[in-house]
Order: sequence, then C-alpha cells, then structure tokens
Amino acid sequence: MRTRLGKLVERLGGQLTGDAEAEVSGIAPLDSADASHITFLSNPKFRNQAGQTKAAALILSPADDAALAGVYGGSRIVTDNPYAYFARAAQFFVELYAEPVRPGIHPAAVVHPEARVDAGATIGPNVTVEAGAAIAAGAVIDAGCFIGRNARVGEGTHFFANVAFHAGCEIGKRGIIHSGAVIGADGFGFARENGVYIKIPQTGRVVIGDDVEIGANTTVDRGALADTIIEDGVKLDNQIQIGHNCQIGAHTAMAGCVGVAGSAKIGKYCTFGGAAMVLGHLTVVDNVHVSSGSMVTRSILEPGQYTGFYPLAKNAEWEKSAAIVRNLGTMREKIRELEKTIKSLTEKK
Amino acid sequence: MRTRLGKLVERLGGQLTGDAEAEVSGIAPLDSADASHITFLSNPKFRNQAGQTKAAALILSPADDAALAGVYGGSRIVTDNPYAYFARAAQFFVELYAEPVRPGIHPAAVVHPEARVDAGATIGPNVTVEAGAAIAAGAVIDAGCFIGRNARVGEGTHFFANVAFHAGCEIGKRGIIHSGAVIGADGFGFARENGVYIKIPQTGRVVIGDDVEIGANTTVDRGALADTIIEDGVKLDNQIQIGHNCQIGAHTAMAGCVGVAGSAKIGKYCTFGGAAMVLGHLTVVDNVHVSSGSMVTRSILEPGQYTGFYPLAKNAEWEKSAAIVRNLGTMREKIRELEKTIKSLTEKK
Amino acid sequence: MRTRLGKLVERLGGQLTGDAEAEVSGIAPLDSADASHITFLSNPKFRNQAGQTKAAALILSPADDAALAGVYGGSRIVTDNPYAYFARAAQFFVELYAEPVRPGIHPAAVVHPEARVDAGATIGPNVTVEAGAAIAAGAVIDAGCFIGRNARVGEGTHFFANVAFHAGCEIGKRGIIHSGAVIGADGFGFARENGVYIKIPQTGRVVIGDDVEIGANTTVDRGALADTIIEDGVKLDNQIQIGHNCQIGAHTAMAGCVGVAGSAKIGKYCTFGGAAMVLGHLTVVDNVHVSSGSMVTRSILEPGQYTGFYPLAKNAEWEKSAAIVRNLGTMREKIRELEKTIKSLTEKK
Repeated sequence: MRTRLGKLVERLGGQLTGDAEAEVSGIAPLDSADASHITFLSNPKFRNQAGQTKAAALILSPADDAALAGVYGGSRIVTDNPYAYFARAAQFFVELYAEPVRPGIHPAAVVHPEARVDAGATIGPNVTVEAGAAIAAGAVIDAGCFIGRNARVGEGTHFFANVAFHAGCEIGKRGIIHSGAVIGADGFGFARENGVYIKIPQTGRVVIGDDVEIGANTTVDRGALADTIIEDGVKLDNQIQIGHNCQIGAHTAMAGCVGVAGSAKIGKYCTFGGAAMVLGHLTVVDNVHVSSGSMVTRSILEPGQYTGFYPLAKNAEWEKSAAIVRNLGTMREKIRELEKTIKSLTEKK
Repeated sequence: MRTRLGKLVERLGGQLTGDAEAEVSGIAPLDSADASHITFLSNPKFRNQAGQTKAAALILSPADDAALAGVYGGSRIVTDNPYAYFARAAQFFVELYAEPVRPGIHPAAVVHPEARVDAGATIGPNVTVEAGAAIAAGAVIDAGCFIGRNARVGEGTHFFANVAFHAGCEIGKRGIIHSGAVIGADGFGFARENGVYIKIPQTGRVVIGDDVEIGANTTVDRGALADTIIEDGVKLDNQIQIGHNCQIGAHTAMAGCVGVAGSAKIGKYCTFGGAAMVLGHLTVVDNVHVSSGSMVTRSILEPGQYTGFYPLAKNAEWEKSAAIVRNLGTMREKIRELEKTIKSLTEKK
Repeated sequence: MRTRLGKLVERLGGQLTGDAEAEVSGIAPLDSADASHITFLSNPKFRNQAGQTKAAALILSPADDAALAGVYGGSRIVTDNPYAYFARAAQFFVELYAEPVRPGIHPAAVVHPEARVDAGATIGPNVTVEAGAAIAAGAVIDAGCFIGRNARVGEGTHFFANVAFHAGCEIGKRGIIHSGAVIGADGFGFARENGVYIKIPQTGRVVIGDDVEIGANTTVDRGALADTIIEDGVKLDNQIQIGHNCQIGAHTAMAGCVGVAGSAKIGKYCTFGGAAMVLGHLTVVDNVHVSSGSMVTRSILEPGQYTGFYPLAKNAEWEKSAAIVRNLGTMREKIRELEKTIKSLTEKK
C-alpha cells in the first residue's frame, strides 16, 4: 500500500514543493529512509544528514527549507512544526496498514443484558461488561477487559487487553487505556481506632476527559466521596499511581512510575519526569515541570522547573558525601566557630 | 432508601441527642451536606463550619459537642472517635445501597472439578479456579481472576476483577484484593555461575491473615523455601512490591508505590509513606513510621519517625546544591584547613 | 517421591563422598534439614552449623570439604559453586514433584484459526490468541493471557496467568513471564503542538532472547520505529518499567521497581538494585552495578558500583540536614569569606 504525496498534504496540510504524484509507503528516520519513504527534520543540527537522505520527501520547517532547498533533491513539505507533522503522517500510515476493525461482540465475551453496547463498538473475547455499562460507537474493548456496572466508555476509545474499568467510572472520546491499567479501584482511606484500620468506603468515581492516554499497569483510584478527575488531553505513562480525589489538569503529561498521593491538585500543561512523586493534598499550578525522581513535598505555586534528587556518584564517593550529609549540622557548627574565632582575632587587633 | 438515626446509633453506638426518628439517606462533608445527610466533625479547627452545616445530624467528639451544643440546631451523635464512626456509618450506607450479591458460579467461569467452592461463594465470569483450591462462604471472586492449585480464600474475602492468586497461597477472612494484584509470583532468586543466572525454584507460599486489604497492581511474591507472611489487618495501597520471605506485621499500612525487598521483617503498627523503599534482610521494629520517598538501608530498631529524601528546589538552586553535595568532601577539607590556619595564627600570638 | 544421591550426582555433577544409594526427598536449610534432606553450605562462616546439620548429604566447596570431612558424618557432594548446585538440585526436586503438564488447548481458550499453536504447547482457559501468533512446543500459556497478532513464543517458555503479550512481539526459549506483565504496550511518544500532545504511533516490537525471566506486573514497551531489545539471560523482577527502544544487555539483572526511560542502552552483566531509575537516551556499559534507589542521570562509561540516594535519618535530624542541603550555596559562600579573612589576617602580619 502506498500513498501519493499530494494526498498526504491534502489531508495533513503543509506546503509541498516537488512531485505530488510521487508515492511513498511509510516513514523512516533520516539515515535509514529510502526512495519509498518520507522522512522529517525537526532539529536544525541534523541539516547535513537531511541533505544526504535518500528519502523521496522531507518534512521540514521554513528555516530549514531555506537552507536545504538547494541541497536536497527530493520533494519537500514545509510546515511550522515538522515533528507534529511527522506524528500525524505516521498515524496516517498506521491507519493505512491497520487490520480493519469488525464491530460486534465476540461470542466469548460476557455482556450483561442491561449493558448498552453500541452497534459500532467492538468487544473482544473473554471481556466482561456489567449491567448498566454504556460503550459508545467506535470504542474497541480488547480481550480480557472488565467494564464495571454503569461505567461509560466514549466514542472511539480503545482499551487494550486486560484493562479493569470499575463501576461508575467514565472516559470520554478517543481515549486509549493500555493493558493492565486499573481505573477506579478503591482509594486508600481508613480511619484508625486503637491501632486498627477501619475502611472508609470509596464511593466517588474516576471521571476522565477526551483524548486521554493511560499507560500499562497504571492505576487511578476512585474518589472517597467526590470524584477523581483526569482532564482532557492528559497523557499518563506506565506504572503510574494516581490517588483518590486527585485532579490532573488538561494536557499534563507524566512519565513512567510517577506517583501522586490522594487529593493532590495538579495544573494544566505540567510535565512530570519518571518516578517523580507528589505528596497528598498539595496544589501544583499550571506549567510546572518536575524533574525525574523528584519528591514534591509542598505546593508549587509558581510555574517553572523543579528538581530534587540526590546526585549519582561512584559508590566510594557517595559513601563519603552521604556520611557528611548525615552530619551537616556539625559542619555548620564548625563554620560558626571559625567565624567567632576570626572575629575575636580581628577584634584583638 | 433512608435510615432512622435511632437505627444507626443502635447499630454503631454513640450517644444521640436529638430526633431518633429523623431519617437520613447518606453521609456528606460539612459544607455540602443537606437535611438528608449526616455529617461529621473530626478536627476542632472546623467547628465554625460545623456550626453552620445544614446536615440533619452531626457526629462529633464530647469536647466539640460541648462547644457546639448551643450553636448547631440538628441532632448530634457523640463518640470518642468521630472519624472512625464516620467510616462505619459510611459502610452502613454502602451496604444499604449495595446490589445484592447472588452466590453461585457464573457459567462462563472455569472451575476445576476438584476445587471446593462453598455454595455461599460468588464466582464471576471468565474466572479460572484450579484443582484443590478452596473458596469459603461469602467470598466474592470477580471477573477474570485466577485462583491457583490448592489456594485458599477465606470467608467474606473479595477479589476484584483480574487478580492472580497463585498455587498454595492463602488469605483469611474479610480480606479485599484489588484488580491486577498478583499474589504468589516467584520471588527473585538466582544463583550466579560464570556470570549467568540459575533460577532457584520458589517453593514457599504467601500466607495472608484476616482483614487485610491489598491494592491494585500490587505484587506479593511467594517465599523461596519458607513463606511470605502478611499478618492480620495489614493495609497495602496500589503498586506495592513485597519481596519473597518478607514478614509484614499486623496493622501495618503502606501507601502507594512502596517497595520491600526480600526477607525484610517489618513490625506491627508501622506506616510507610508513598514510594518508601526497604532493602532486603532488614528488620524494622513495631511502631516505626517511614516518610514518603525514603530509602531504608539499615535495620530500624527503635520506634519513631524516619526520613530520607533530597529536598525539592527550583531547578537552578538544585543544580547548585547538587554540585556541592557531589563535592562535600572537598568542603570538609577546606574547613579543616581553615581550622589549622586559625590554630597556627592563635598559637603564634 | 525420593531420589538416590547417586542419581543426583549423575545428573548434576560434583564429587560424591558417601552412600550413593542413600535416598533424599528434598532440599532444606542447614538448621532445619533432617535425614530425608540434602542441604548446602555456600558461605564458610556457617561451617560450624554445617558440621551439626542432620541432613543426609551436604553440598559444599573443596575448601569447606577439607575443613568438614572429619566433622560432618553424612554424605558430601563437592563442587566449585555450591549455591549454583543447590539451585539445580532444587530445580531437580521441583520437576520430580511437579504436576504433569498435559499439552493442548483448553476448551475455554479462544485461539484464532490462523494462529499456529504447536501440539506440544499448553493453552489454559480464558486465554486469547490472535491471528498469526505462533506458540512453540513445550510453551505453557496459563489462564487469562493475551497473545497478540503475529506474536511468537519460543520453546518451553511459560507465561503465568493474565500476561498481555502484544502484537508482533517475540520471546525465545525457556523464558518465564509472570502474571500481570505487559509486553509491547505503546511507548510514551508524543509530538507537542500548541501545548497539546499528538500521538506518535509506536510501530516497533519487543524482541526478547532466550532464558529471560520477567516479573509480575512489569511492563516493557514496544519501540517507536525500531525495536525494544531484551537480550539472553536477562532477569527482571516485579513492577519494572522498560521504556521504548531500550536495549538491555545479556545477563543483566534488575530488582523490583526499577525504571528505565526510553532509548537507554544498558550493557551486559549489569545489576540494578530495587527502585533504581535510569533516564532516557543514556548508555550504561557492561559490568555496571547501580545501588538501590539511585537515579542514573548521565551515561556510565566505566564499570563499577554507582550510588545516589539521600541517607535515611531520624526525622528530626533529617529536617536539620535537609534544611542545610537547601542552603549549601550559602555555606560555601561562608567558607570562601572565612578563607579571605584569614588570608588578609596572615598577610597583615
């Protein structure tokens, strides 16, 4: 299967210089692309490499186009954001090659008669859909998933195999939930009495907006009384834990292994590096970027980049530094004594 | 469905001042409760808010009752631990509204003829129960769970969807295991020979007491030769890893993303904040509290609160501090030289 | 079931001194072994204990044998690596007692007619195998697993219950994947445009070598364009995250909760302690050992042991040290001023 460059530009925009009738069959990196591929230049430092690519066509920015127009002999598609264009072109080719989805309920699925599954939805084998659940057109629920009572899955949303999506939870349109993710397990809420924990029932839901992607084995707990909220466009990587009653602002992205404790309120357009942790009941405003491995222990009320992890070292050096860290108080005390001694020395004069 | 205040107090205790015939339909926070709700005051700093709540009834402590008796016009339930009372009241309402469980084995479950499933147990669709497994009365095994050979599930214990509970493992009464949890996978045990790992078979079990709750996607490994032990009343949040041959003492609670390496022995009534990590073969005594994000690298033999993570900062400040941490040895050296210089200065005099 | 010592040595090697006809039924630690057991001494510091063990036979090194020959009365098996010998002997007994596997496809499995399942493979109940997948002889796929389109599972590889192994991924021979692991979910790849994320399709695979073990709820993402590679003999514990396009070198082992961000290239024979984290696009050479809880933020180009976590302390001490860490810049400034003052003092003289 191949596609004409002209068709691609018609669909995705950008300005084509070159042969609209040329056909390409896929996308490839600058160095491995051949005449059947389209490629892209998203960083000017690779201009030299781009000048030598064998690709049939090159996606690039106006500035790079000016520099490469006389150098690169293939077709050029000029766009303000070549990397975003590449992403859309790659989506285009994936659709081109994708197995056609055949809507319907697999005979080995168990769908409760009181569930509402749209005729345009696809339910795989060994799936369980409980009473009252609603699955919209274009949704695809792969093998082994569980959809609890009264849960709602929006149009075009795709659950990969073995997702658990619990009672009453909701996800909007065009979402993706990867295998092993658990949405709507009970939050971790207990009252303590004489050293023993008494469970506080978790009766809130998880409410997820449109265009949200949730990674493999990630967990998002239901709220205690109110709901846990994941706003539009949020992207969560694998192995993430989101506690009950959290709110994650629109278009915020979190890398793998991040943990957010209960009732934290995270702003929009934030990013969290891998394994960053956020304590409960904190507020993080919009446009905050937390580095990997950092522990957020207080609210962050000002946009910016925040970091907090202990620097890696050869083990022997670490042992030395760590021992001093443990005694930093003593070190400060010594400095104070030195200051005093010097002061008395200078005063004597 | 509504319940009389009198009935609630009859069931849960506490001293009622007000109308025993008044009916409530649920529980709500101080600020959003209306005349159909009961609410609670567990922290004296919210007394003002409590005085103005529109709830039909207020759960509160004797001290708060003395302060609010003349202010709040609704019914009052006085108890020593209002938060625990709230938890029990919330459980009461959840039971009131719960769908009735219909014991039995779903036709789409696969239960081995040599498994023993009590007539009062409930087995959902797409569940697999292997030979020799025993599931007690009142147990509920939701869709997609796996119960291995000779495993035992106690009375009233609830497995949410897609739990894997492996061969020979045991859990007591009234337990809860959330979706995606894996109990009894092999521990991580290898002998090394010429750089290559040789698997040490893991033939111990996981033995879990009564009233234990285990979070979504949490993993508890089986022992190598002896068993991994989780004692009564332990509460584990999501995404936790418990290594082989660990022992977790009764009524200890661990927040999300905690990791405990093999053969660690944790005491009773401990708490571990989110993402705290415990190295293997350590001992932690009773009543130890480890802060979030802390790495426990040595045994803790004295009760108390322990902490160890690097403080968060604006990235620019972190870069400065982290660079110094890497060179703390040099800084200590400078202080020593300063001390010497000053000593020689003072001696000269 | 019992086995003769002679048979064990015939199978596993080592030099037997004692009664080849003596029969043992299993393996046990030095202190709990009785006359029906074989035991092992892998550390000379337990020689005294070994001298008193009641086991029928003792696996030990030549040096320990010289020391214990006159002390211990049972049979002795001498070998250069007693711990590796123990591992193999334990495997031997596990096979002896194992339930016989009965190859075939369980009637409650859903296997696509275009999948190729070898007659010697075993497919459990509630498993889904998609079109084009190939499962080799001796492979065992337990209940609830998902095997995607065109995936390949090698000879003798065992998937425990509820594994998701996605389209196109491959694993070699004698592998083990534990419950809840997800192999081949999409990597975390997005282009950003006006603050909104556009998904980059992940079209690479996960390619796993022979003799690899992957722990419960561990996730290994498929590559973006190229593949994610796990080489022969790699051992991954539970709750690990491996990002897209990573390469993990042969015979490297990672303990629980480790995270490796995308495109990291890890060498052979490395070890990573629990909860160690590796940032993306880094290189770690062969024979690097990273301590638990360490964040690898730059490439490691020299073998050795590396560490980086903040030392644990009583909370009160931590508060003091952490406050100073936040102000280390000030402390260095003070030292510099002290140096200047002293310099001017000495110069005046």
